[in-house]
Amino acid sequence: MPISVAPDGREFRFPTPEQDREEIQNLKTISNEQRRLGREIVVVQGMGFVGSVMAAVVADAEDGNGNPYYFVHGHDLVSRRSYWKIPVINSGEPPVHAEDPEISRIFPRCVKEKKTLRATWNKYVYKLADIVVVDIQLDAIKPVFGNASTGYCDLSAFRRGMRTIGKNISPECLVLVETTVPPGTCEKVVKPVIEEEFKKRKINIKKNPPLIAHSYERVMPGVKYVSSIRNFWRTFSGVNNKSADLAEEFLNNVLDTENYPFYRLDSTNASEFAKVLENSYRATNIALMLEWAKMAEKIGVNLFEVIKSIKVRKGTHDNMLKPSLGVGGYCLTKDPVLANWAAETLFNLDETLPIAIHSVNINDTMSFHTVELIEEIFPRLVDKRIAILGVSYLKDVADTRHSPSKLLWESLMEKDAILSVHDPLVETWPEVGNMKVEKDINVTLQDADIVVFAVGHKIYLDLEPEEVIKACGKPSFIVDCSNFLTDEKIMKYLKLGCEVKGVGKGHVEYLKEIRE
Amino acid sequence: MPISVAPDGREFRFPTPEQDREEIQNLKTISNEQRRLGREIVVVQGMGFVGSVMAAVVADAEDGNGNPYYFVHGHDLVSRRSYWKIPVINSGEPPVHAEDPEISRIFPRCVKEKKTLRATWNKYVYKLADIVVVDIQLDAIKPVFGNASTGYCDLSAFRRGMRTIGKNISPECLVLVETTVPPGTCEKVVKPVIEEEFKKRKINIKKNPPLIAHSYERVMPGVKYVSSIRNFWRTFSGVNNKSADLAEEFLNNVLDTENYPFYRLDSTNASEFAKVLENSYRATNIALMLEWAKMAEKIGVNLFEVIKSIKVRKGTHDNMLKPSLGVGGYCLTKDPVLANWAAETLFNLDETLPIAIHSVNINDTMSFHTVELIEEIFPRLVDKRIAILGVSYLKDVADTRHSPSKLLWESLMEKDAILSVHDPLVETWPEVGNMKVEKDINVTLQDADIVVFAVGHKIYLDLEPEEVIKACGKPSFIVDCSNFLTDEKIMKYLKLGCEVKGVGKGHVEYLKEIRE
Repeated sequence: MPISVAPDGREFRFPTPEQDREEIQNLKTISNEQRRLGREIVVVQGMGFVGSVMAAVVADAEDGNGNPYYFVHGHDLVSRRSYWKIPVINSGEPPVHAEDPEISRIFPRCVKEKKTLRATWNKYVYKLADIVVVDIQLDAIKPVFGNASTGYCDLSAFRRGMRTIGKNISPECLVLVETTVPPGTCEKVVKPVIEEEFKKRKINIKKNPPLIAHSYERVMPGVKYVSSIRNFWRTFSGVNNKSADLAEEFLNNVLDTENYPFYRLDSTNASEFAKVLENSYRATNIALMLEWAKMAEKIGVNLFEVIKSIKVRKGTHDNMLKPSLGVGGYCLTKDPVLANWAAETLFNLDETLPIAIHSVNINDTMSFHTVELIEEIFPRLVDKRIAILGVSYLKDVADTRHSPSKLLWESLMEKDAILSVHDPLVETWPEVGNMKVEKDINVTLQDADIVVFAVGHKIYLDLEPEEVIKACGKPSFIVDCSNFLTDEKIMKYLKLGCEVKGVGKGHVEYLKEIRE
Repeated sequence: MPISVAPDGREFRFPTPEQDREEIQNLKTISNEQRRLGREIVVVQGMGFVGSVMAAVVADAEDGNGNPYYFVHGHDLVSRRSYWKIPVINSGEPPVHAEDPEISRIFPRCVKEKKTLRATWNKYVYKLADIVVVDIQLDAIKPVFGNASTGYCDLSAFRRGMRTIGKNISPECLVLVETTVPPGTCEKVVKPVIEEEFKKRKINIKKNPPLIAHSYERVMPGVKYVSSIRNFWRTFSGVNNKSADLAEEFLNNVLDTENYPFYRLDSTNASEFAKVLENSYRATNIALMLEWAKMAEKIGVNLFEVIKSIKVRKGTHDNMLKPSLGVGGYCLTKDPVLANWAAETLFNLDETLPIAIHSVNINDTMSFHTVELIEEIFPRLVDKRIAILGVSYLKDVADTRHSPSKLLWESLMEKDAILSVHDPLVETWPEVGNMKVEKDINVTLQDADIVVFAVGHKIYLDLEPEEVIKACGKPSFIVDCSNFLTDEKIMKYLKLGCEVKGVGKGHVEYLKEIRE
């Protein structure tokens, strides 16, 4: 019997054909009721990290009189990986883990109290939609490590999603793509697929051109997860004016556009391009800092202090970024690749995006630099005990997607070091064979020769040198990957007999000189 | 008889040995008088673009009771290129051309009214100094066009300047280096040279270590020239605490540190590094935009509109820069080279600064892209009449240093086009054989097949399409190098029969479609 297993271990059986038939009746009944209440029907396609919370935000939106604008059906597939989300959401629980307390409020509120949110596996739901919001996950595949120019985008699942939409929606339904897509996708993939299905259905696409809009999300995991959707700026566009107008009305109802004004661009190419440029800008500015970090280390300079000094100058250098263990997460690691692939494949351009791609390569391999720092002190790492503090890709979140700690872990494993890893938020590490992550930092630190401060979780910033040395049982080698230690703490470590090095922190050599 | 010729043609004879002797007496008398008035003696070394105005700003500084803090001697060399500045300053005239009206006020005010500023050629002046501010020009030499990794820094003139200082100053004199120097210069060049000269003079350098500080300027030509020195943030440092303390007191007296707080870094390496990083950050962010401009052009997107849309998001993308004809001026074109050269030469590092250097290469050759745009319409440029609007490197200033218009001019000349150039502010073009620059735009535009909007001077932004076409005598091909034309104007040009293209402006193709 096929089942889908939730992260907490609960098992959910796939629906039976009978349940399928019942669900269609349910969908019709609910949607009719909701229309009578004056609500439009929104289907959110994809109940992942963005889609599920977007669905809740749409379901939560109300007019000035407290009446919900929309009833939302969240749709996901009957698959081992995804199906569990549907019963979980329908029980009023969030299908995502989050540090934001609003996550555990908004789902029960919309599902149980307002009754404006429900999840379904049944594709029939698209027939009932006034608006479909596309939140299908779309990955960049990088087949050669450190060579992002060979990266590509597999659009087949996305294309299937569009075909499902085209087969089912009414010609008046707005399709709003929220997924970060390669520039050109709405015009060159979404539109032709939907048009093809419309033609099969004898819909006159001259009279009823598909209504397709694009508005990219800027979701950030962490304590402001919900807010990063609702209270944040949006750019949008449509393949024609009517699509853009409908998207404008929808976003206006759902988001706080008064405090976070939206911006209408004149083509979907433009807004798709904006998203990938936005993240390529950040990726490039992080990559740039690695070479300056290396120089700072060699010439006795504290790069972080230099950056702070430059930022006193207002307006021109505020976006300077910082070097670290590396770059993780889901956006900066892939968006330049989507853009480069679009240039090559969707537009057949000879010139692509060399700086952006080079930056991805630098960022993907940045952890090697921390390994180099370690090897400056211990050229042979065999049987050295190394404690890695932090495995998520961002401070104070549990998200491990593309975390640079993984490359650090792998590199040190290859050198036959003995590793222990700690994270206060991560239970198991999906990208490293679902390894259990230690929760007791004293266990992780025990007998460590080397302690790597990999992530800026608050509890690591609060650690006192005395505690660390006590837990290690000796003065160990402390590695600071991104300015997590103050000079005062570094001085204390040095005085207590530790060796210290930090990415971009060349001034530690100077601190050693004035230690006494 | 050796003479020095000012830009306006006035000729100045070099001083005679008798004048030399008299000048020493003058310097002594003036300095003694000024000391009696409670003023410290400042010598500014180098009366160039930064030094002359810095000298005036220091001479202009007053305490709360309106008493000047300092008397300033501006020093420059007896050479054909420089000597004229001395009599010019002493007559109360500024030795620099500037759009800032304050320039033509501050020199007569300090020289004639306050009598706190005087220029001299005589090196004896260093013997009288309490503070020497070093503003010697220091260039990066790029021997291979488009290959900045071969660039280097010739420190010989700078070294001579330091030797002059070391031979003459009192051991208590502060030497404040304001010149943008390769990181490491204060520690590895200035300090050893002065120490060497101190030793020759039997000064005990253990007891009297040279007092050397570094504080880089951020001067911008244009209407806020003086303000960009006085009312702007400063970072500083010293080779020892006493030097840094003295620099702090000096900067506090001279600059508006209340509204523009300064920042003390813990080593001269750090503040030297900060300056070159600051400009490398900008250079890299401009270079990044060229590849996105090219993609935007091919996929029908207006990059400038996309950038505007992204910047609505506050705090994370405010420093995104824009593509243009290219990058000129004196900082972004050389500072990454100084940094890279320092890494190689002063610190013997294996790894240098590849992204920063690659960015310089992209920026130095950016004008080629405008040539490509022109050749998309006119693959053969022989005998084509091309009007270039603007030869300075920055809008609304007359400064032509490293202007990208020069590469455009050279590239089009090589293709045997017939060129005319206009600039409202530049009289002659020093970098192009002192060519006279046309002032009457109608003369420049006459019979032009192609009009290149190269620089964003206000008068070009104000030009109406009808005027341009009338002056050309026909609808010509309009090239917009950096979003100088609004969509409304582009539409007008198109409707009047012109062809239009712009760097990063792919949406023009779309405007053509909806022209009717």
